[in-house]
Amino acid sequence: MRDELRPRIEAFRLRTGRPPGLGVVLVGEHPASEVYVRNKLRAASEVGLRADLERLPATAALADALALVERLNGSPAHDGILVQDPLPAGLGPGASQQVFDLIDPAKDVDGFTPVNAGRLLQNRATLPPCTPSGIIELLDRSGIPVAGRRAVVIGRSDIVGKPVALLLVQRDATVTLCHSKTANLPDVARQAEILVVAVGRPAFVTPDFVRPGATVVDVGINNVTDRALLERWFGDDHPRLRDFDRRGALLVGDVHPDVVEVAGALTPVPGGVGPLTIASLLRNTVRAAELRADR
Amino acid sequence: MRDELRPRIEAFRLRTGRPPGLGVVLVGEHPASEVYVRNKLRAASEVGLRADLERLPATAALADALALVERLNGSPAHDGILVQDPLPAGLGPGASQQVFDLIDPAKDVDGFTPVNAGRLLQNRATLPPCTPSGIIELLDRSGIPVAGRRAVVIGRSDIVGKPVALLLVQRDATVTLCHSKTANLPDVARQAEILVVAVGRPAFVTPDFVRPGATVVDVGINNVTDRALLERWFGDDHPRLRDFDRRGALLVGDVHPDVVEVAGALTPVPGGVGPLTIASLLRNTVRAAELRADR
Repeated sequence: MRDELRPRIEAFRLRTGRPPGLGVVLVGEHPASEVYVRNKLRAASEVGLRADLERLPATAALADALALVERLNGSPAHDGILVQDPLPAGLGPGASQQVFDLIDPAKDVDGFTPVNAGRLLQNRATLPPCTPSGIIELLDRSGIPVAGRRAVVIGRSDIVGKPVALLLVQRDATVTLCHSKTANLPDVARQAEILVVAVGRPAFVTPDFVRPGATVVDVGINNVTDRALLERWFGDDHPRLRDFDRRGALLVGDVHPDVVEVAGALTPVPGGVGPLTIASLLRNTVRAAELRADR
Repeated sequence: MRDELRPRIEAFRLRTGRPPGLGVVLVGEHPASEVYVRNKLRAASEVGLRADLERLPATAALADALALVERLNGSPAHDGILVQDPLPAGLGPGASQQVFDLIDPAKDVDGFTPVNAGRLLQNRATLPPCTPSGIIELLDRSGIPVAGRRAVVIGRSDIVGKPVALLLVQRDATVTLCHSKTANLPDVARQAEILVVAVGRPAFVTPDFVRPGATVVDVGINNVTDRALLERWFGDDHPRLRDFDRRGALLVGDVHPDVVEVAGALTPVPGGVGPLTIASLLRNTVRAAELRADR
């Protein structure tokens, strides 16, 4: 995906005299957010995008965050705006929603604004949410057929579960959306030829959830610091335990490692859906730039 | 639902000196549209709403339709705007979308604009689409439990199938969305404790689609003019055939009459989802009026 973007970015630069630009808003110093933002900025630079980090201190007021988004909305050099979630609670209740809603839908490269969510529902999305569209790319580029297949999505978030269910329906899958209130979840999940898991609970999906041969997409990225849990999931002498011993933590997906024995295909964590989400973000930025230049 | 609206409408009138107002746009003379519009206007008047029919001839230009929507957007007396679908093909390709997209989301009582569709996806809907929210009302007021149940929706339209699936998920159902590309549709449908059918094919859902005791919601309204088909579905001497003989046509749902033998509950056609859709429209108009007055 990144390789495909480079010539588009070069063509855009030749046409307009500038690279497509991404403005990343980071409020406060949430450690995981620092890592995510750094990865996004580096990926953007590597393909030739302009990527600017706009920081606000954790003590910033809501008005400061809103003013920053307004400035990026009006900036000719910025085609995409990404506000790193979560915003500090100190901004006040409902503040996060206000900040996200203020992003110009034409620059909303995360696809979080209501109008972009609505266009997704209506099959008119130009800037689809990054993780769901990354999952569709992953299936397509892995040669996994979707049309006519049973897909099950576990997790009903606004940014992953519900939109990926809609994108799978759009690709002619028959889709079941499950969540914490689903009865007999393993039985329902076992109907899936494509199982997408986005619940944020490490090793939650065990082999009994998985139909033999199914494609399993693991969206979870959970930071696990308890060695006993890791030993239980991976066994006593798994190579990943040595990583844990070096770092004191390990990123583990929502899917139990033993699922690899049952699944026909399984995305790794880390290195699966995460990089695809970033590639989708870069593509949305290029799309947004091209669409703005066409106006 | 209508009885609950009357005191709200009276309170609004006392507070603002005017009733909530609905503007209905009808372009051309599509016979079914004439009936739908007449029913909506009458229902609106009966509960005490102001309801204005704004007609344009079938020969109207796109600019005329857009100007009419703009005028209603700016009208202080109109809280809700409904453009009767379908618009004449003569308006040109993509015209329908342009007209619907121009409706002020705050007056979009059909819930069709992208921003209102997105708010639905994000559980923030204030003006939800009428048929889906009518179906939820129907289940609630009939005492049909939804949370934790398996629901299957057949049909993936933007205005019924997809939004009702999202509303059912929001109510904690486990929802499967099916469509023309679904394999083994009767088997999938039989998993449903709540089966919603919105495909626009008369008598399409036969008893083999229905788990015994399931609740079946029939959204289809199909005008059937072939007596032989009706005899096949209803039998030779069903009372509805006498209605057919008087009128030369019969409204038939997407659900085969024999399903009544299997289902635990079944909505009639006509007289089921249709009147609930209208009641939802009236409620959306009152909501839109109250929200505008609060601003």
